[in-house]
Amino acid sequence: MNKIRIGIVGYGNLGKSVELGIRQNEDMELVGIFTRRNPSTIETVTRAVAVYTMDEAKKMTEQIDVMVLCGGSMSDLPFQGPEFASLFNTVDGYDNHAQIPDYFSAMNENALEAQKICIIAGGWDPGMFSINRLYAEAILPEGNTYTFWGKGVSQGHSDAIRRIKGVMKGKQYTIPIENAIEAVRRGDRPELSTREKHHRVCFVVAEEGTDKEQIEHEIKTMPNYFADYDTEIHFITEEELEKNHPGLPHGGLIIRHGRTGLHEEHNHVIEYQLALDSNPDFTANVLVAFARAAHRLNQEGVAGAKTVVDIAPAYLSSKSAEELRKSII
Amino acid sequence: MNKIRIGIVGYGNLGKSVELGIRQNEDMELVGIFTRRNPSTIETVTRAVAVYTMDEAKKMTEQIDVMVLCGGSMSDLPFQGPEFASLFNTVDGYDNHAQIPDYFSAMNENALEAQKICIIAGGWDPGMFSINRLYAEAILPEGNTYTFWGKGVSQGHSDAIRRIKGVMKGKQYTIPIENAIEAVRRGDRPELSTREKHHRVCFVVAEEGTDKEQIEHEIKTMPNYFADYDTEIHFITEEELEKNHPGLPHGGLIIRHGRTGLHEEHNHVIEYQLALDSNPDFTANVLVAFARAAHRLNQEGVAGAKTVVDIAPAYLSSKSAEELRKSII
Repeated sequence: MNKIRIGIVGYGNLGKSVELGIRQNEDMELVGIFTRRNPSTIETVTRAVAVYTMDEAKKMTEQIDVMVLCGGSMSDLPFQGPEFASLFNTVDGYDNHAQIPDYFSAMNENALEAQKICIIAGGWDPGMFSINRLYAEAILPEGNTYTFWGKGVSQGHSDAIRRIKGVMKGKQYTIPIENAIEAVRRGDRPELSTREKHHRVCFVVAEEGTDKEQIEHEIKTMPNYFADYDTEIHFITEEELEKNHPGLPHGGLIIRHGRTGLHEEHNHVIEYQLALDSNPDFTANVLVAFARAAHRLNQEGVAGAKTVVDIAPAYLSSKSAEELRKSII
Repeated sequence: MNKIRIGIVGYGNLGKSVELGIRQNEDMELVGIFTRRNPSTIETVTRAVAVYTMDEAKKMTEQIDVMVLCGGSMSDLPFQGPEFASLFNTVDGYDNHAQIPDYFSAMNENALEAQKICIIAGGWDPGMFSINRLYAEAILPEGNTYTFWGKGVSQGHSDAIRRIKGVMKGKQYTIPIENAIEAVRRGDRPELSTREKHHRVCFVVAEEGTDKEQIEHEIKTMPNYFADYDTEIHFITEEELEKNHPGLPHGGLIIRHGRTGLHEEHNHVIEYQLALDSNPDFTANVLVAFARAAHRLNQEGVAGAKTVVDIAPAYLSSKSAEELRKSII
C-alpha cells in the first residue's frame, strides 16, 4: 500500500505536533517541513526530516498528497491558505470563527480551479466541537447548546498578559464555572453572561521592582480579554511558573440539553468533553486524521473547500468500510 | 420548500417516538404509519395520522421519501429491511452488532438495485456511539476506548426477568461502575472484566405466595444476562414499581484515553456521554435526523446501504452549508 505523503507548512508548536502525530499513523509518511526561516537553522523534533523553503513547495506537487498548514490564523493562513490551495490538497486549523465564511470562499475558488480539496477549520474548536454541536442540534431540535472551555491555557490571553509593562512571563487559565455546567445539565436552560460561564486565573512573573498593583489593575481592566470576567491574579517566581505550569493543557465541554415527548416531558443531555495535556498535539492529531480524509476524497474526484462537517466520519479512519462495520459499529 | 415525506413501519414504542420526533422538524411531514395489525384498531399518539396495512406500502412509493423502519432487530428487520429497501429509502436502528455485516449485505443488494439509500444501525449504540468511537480512534490512534452503558433500563434484561415463573413485573437497571470509569479517565488503561464494568439492579413484583429466594436464584444464575455480573434484587409492590420506576431512561458513556508526544508523555481524554429520559424518543430522533440525510443523499444520486459513519454530519442538519459555516463551525 502506498503511504499518504504529508507536508507540513510552518514549524511552530502545531507543526512540531503534526510531525509527531504522523508517526502514530502507519499509512502516512512525512515528506518534509516547509518554513519561511532558513532551513539550515531548523532543528526538527525527530530525525532525518527534510526541511525546505516555502518556495520549494511549488516544485513538489507530485511528491506530496496533502499539505498540513500550521501557520497562524491571524497573519499566515489568510495568505498561505489560498496560495497552497492552488497547488495541494490541504488541511488547516483556521480558527477565526467570524472570518470562516470569507476564508472558505477564498480557499474554495482556488481549490476548485486546481481540482484539489481543502479542509478548513479543523482542530477541536472549531473542529470536533463544531461536529458535535451539529449532531446534537440535529438530534435534539428543541433544546439549547452550551460550550465551555477549559480548564486550560489560553495562549491569546497569556500573550496579552506578557505585553504588559513589567511582566516577564505569564500564563492564563480559562476555567469553566461548575455551577453553570450543573444548571445546564439539570435543564434549567440558563441565560449565562460571559462572567457566569468562565473565570480566568493568571500566574504572573513580574520584573523586580515593578508595581504589582498596577499590573493587576491593567490585567483586570483589559477590554475583551479580562474586563468581562472575574479574574484572579497570582504573582509567582519564574521557578514556580516552570515547575507548576508547564505545557499547554486545554479542553472543554459541549452540552446540549433537549426535550422530547408529547408534552416535552422527556429531558435529554448530550455531552462531548475533552481533557488534553497538550492543545497543539491534539489539534495536530485532528488535522492528521482529516488529511487522510482529504487524500481519499480527492482520489475519488472531490474538490473544493470543505469544513469538518462536510466529511463523512469513515474517511478519517485507516480501517476499511468492512472492518468498521465489524469492529466499530 | 417541499417537506420530506416520512412513513413509519411498525408502531411500538419506537414508532410512536418517531411520530413525535417528526413534529420537531419543520422540514418534515408524516405521511402515515404502516402496521401488521388491523389499522382500525390503532390509536395514534397525535391526531389525524393515517394508518395503513403493510401491503399498502408498495403502492405508495411516490408519496413517501423515506421509510423509518421501527420493527425489532431480532424478528422483524431481517425480513422487513430488505423488502422495504427494494421500494424506499430507509433508515433503521438495527442493533444486533454481530449480524450487522450480513444485514448490510442484504440491504445493500436490494437498495442498489432499486437505486435507493438505506441507512442502517442508527440510534445511539449502534449509532452515535459508533460515530464517536470512530472519531476518537482516528484522532488518538495510540489509546484505548471504553464503552459504559447506563444508568438505564435494559429492555432485554427486563424481559428476561419477566419470563421467570412467579414474576409479575420487573425492571432491570444497568449501572456503570464509577471506579472503573475513574480508572479509565486517569489513563490506567485497565483490563476490565464484564463484572468490573457494570452491575445490574432488578426491581421485581412477585406473584403472591411465590418463593422469592427461588426467583432471586434464577435471576442471579441466568447465563449471559446476569451470571457474569453482580446483581442486586429488590422485591417491591406493583404500586412502587409504577410510581418509582416509570419510563425507559437510559444513557451511557464512551471514553477514549490516548497518548501523544515524543515519548507518549501527553494524556488526552475524549468523552461522549448521553443521559436520556426516554430511550425510544432519543433513538427515534437520531433516526429522524438520518432520514433527512437519506433523502438528500438519494436526491444527489447516492444509493446502497450505508451506516451512520458513511454520512457526512452536514446532511443531518436542516441548515444550509452557508448557515452551518456561520453559526456552527
